[in-house]
Amino acid sequence: MAGGGPRYEKLDRAPIDPESLLLDVRKEKIDKVISQRTRTFTIVLDRLEDSFNMAAVMRTCEANGLQEVHVIVNPAAPFMPNSRVAQGCDKWLDVKIYRDFASCRAALKARGFSLYASAIREDATSLYSMRFDSKIALIFGNERDGVSPEVLAGSDGTFWIPMRGFSQSLNISAAASACVTRAISWREEHLGRVGDLTEGEAQELRERFYVLAVKQRKKIFKKAPPSSP
Amino acid sequence: MAGGGPRYEKLDRAPIDPESLLLDVRKEKIDKVISQRTRTFTIVLDRLEDSFNMAAVMRTCEANGLQEVHVIVNPAAPFMPNSRVAQGCDKWLDVKIYRDFASCRAALKARGFSLYASAIREDATSLYSMRFDSKIALIFGNERDGVSPEVLAGSDGTFWIPMRGFSQSLNISAAASACVTRAISWREEHLGRVGDLTEGEAQELRERFYVLAVKQRKKIFKKAPPSSP
Repeated sequence: MAGGGPRYEKLDRAPIDPESLLLDVRKEKIDKVISQRTRTFTIVLDRLEDSFNMAAVMRTCEANGLQEVHVIVNPAAPFMPNSRVAQGCDKWLDVKIYRDFASCRAALKARGFSLYASAIREDATSLYSMRFDSKIALIFGNERDGVSPEVLAGSDGTFWIPMRGFSQSLNISAAASACVTRAISWREEHLGRVGDLTEGEAQELRERFYVLAVKQRKKIFKKAPPSSP
Repeated sequence: MAGGGPRYEKLDRAPIDPESLLLDVRKEKIDKVISQRTRTFTIVLDRLEDSFNMAAVMRTCEANGLQEVHVIVNPAAPFMPNSRVAQGCDKWLDVKIYRDFASCRAALKARGFSLYASAIREDATSLYSMRFDSKIALIFGNERDGVSPEVLAGSDGTFWIPMRGFSQSLNISAAASACVTRAISWREEHLGRVGDLTEGEAQELRERFYVLAVKQRKKIFKKAPPSSP
């Protein structure tokens, strides 16, 4: 139904080859990060409401080599990490969002995870006596209310960071950092390594990260004068 | 020079006896906190500007048994920890304020402390290889600029929390938590104890904390109907 006139064939775009667009030093950085990545230790955030906390926890996870963060959304507060604090780390993470704890639990249980909920009580397991040689997810609750009763009922156990002062709890960005750095340093000390991706997982991530790194490069160059009209 | 008329002697007020005004359970809590208190491991905050971070670090310190926090003020940002995050923990701490690093350094050096500045570089000492069996102060710098050149030049060494991802640093509330919990758990594991006040230090603190706890009690009861006009 189109009118007359010439019709032009579109020239096929050359497929992007991320490898050719990345400097070797950048590829080495990506490969090094992947060699220290894990999908067997993770964090679940249960209905957080503070965007500073959301962002600080994500950055702690990314910086320590966690590939996944699981998020049960708070109906009253969208999951919007403060970008000034997150500093763009989220693009390197798998952030999995769930409407409720049941679906989060089902997904992690299907993969063989044990779930431990953070609960401030002296009869909870001390963080410092925990072993991190199996698949473990640590769950942190809402800033004011803690983890939900549903989470407590559906977890394999509770843990706490022993409190030695008058303060009965840590701020959540501090609590998550204490736990993540403890788990990762425990693995390094007791297992001799932190990263544990399979070769297939590593290759899949390498392809994604190469493309992401190229896209980021484009963004960096966006403000430079265009090389062609 | 006062006018005539009767003169009344003032009745001496009975001195406050905090011990008689505190419940035993409260005294036990205070004594337990004191038994886990230390003045031989501390934190220096070098010109922070974010009130959330100031507060979260103070709470981490108090909750982990540190009695002292040292603060070099930022001329452009007063030291005003966010009270929602600090949750009143600062009244149980000795927060020492300095106008510059030189005076902070002098005070800590006179007491035999070694000073380590947090610096994000792979040749810095790893937090995880540090020993905490002597007097150590860890210095954290400004959120954007890090520790000042003066601090770097005047410290005994630099340390870092090994970064294993693309993020090159942690948010400062997360970084301080990783360091404080590491140091305190290291002491518990390697020295068998966390608290190390002398009997004199403990007694001095006990007297202060008893009075503070009574004042806090008064505050709690302030809204109740007065028992006498």
